[in-house]
Amino acid sequence: MFVLKGLTLPCFATIFPSVRKAGDGGYESMSDEIEAMVNEQPGFLGLESVREPNGNGITVCYWKSIDDIKRWKDEALHREAQERGRLEWYAEYGIRIVEIKETYDWH
Amino acid sequence: MFVLKGLTLPCFATIFPSVRKAGDGGYESMSDEIEAMVNEQPGFLGLESVREPNGNGITVCYWKSIDDIKRWKDEALHREAQERGRLEWYAEYGIRIVEIKETYDWH
Repeated sequence: MFVLKGLTLPCFATIFPSVRKAGDGGYESMSDEIEAMVNEQPGFLGLESVREPNGNGITVCYWKSIDDIKRWKDEALHREAQERGRLEWYAEYGIRIVEIKETYDWH
Repeated sequence: MFVLKGLTLPCFATIFPSVRKAGDGGYESMSDEIEAMVNEQPGFLGLESVREPNGNGITVCYWKSIDDIKRWKDEALHREAQERGRLEWYAEYGIRIVEIKETYDWH
């Protein structure tokens, strides 16, 4: 299943639209490490992530609180990934921290 | 440019993760109509949208207010698209209405 089901409020998320540069440059292995690690973070509820072959991608990560998001932002391996992201992997990105006001799933 | 730049608060968004079924079934032409129309809606600020070849996609639409989102939700052509989406185009989807608390762009 791709769409994360059963979110209950209060709930928060980060929306991360990005454009990947061509080439790997260690991205895939770091990405696997980060994904394994985010799954163990307190307050992490799940994620939805897509990337087109042209490099455009959006990842949405869901969290129980803004504090959980801030803690993950400052985690050491994640900070390293952010730094390498700017230097090597991304042509551009945005980060939006949001509060979910309503949520609805259809299947 | 893929990442929407220069959003200012207050600002709201809809996050729409979805899985498309195989085949077109009128999706592309309706999708073009809807996209042309959403660009003319009051309070619409822009969107980011990606879909992988496997059918998984995420569209984020940005708006000035929740009222703008509700008005668009009830617009006739958009309601028809929602109905056909459930009957024909999507295997599953989620809709999250969110308030943006922080936003940051890097380029």
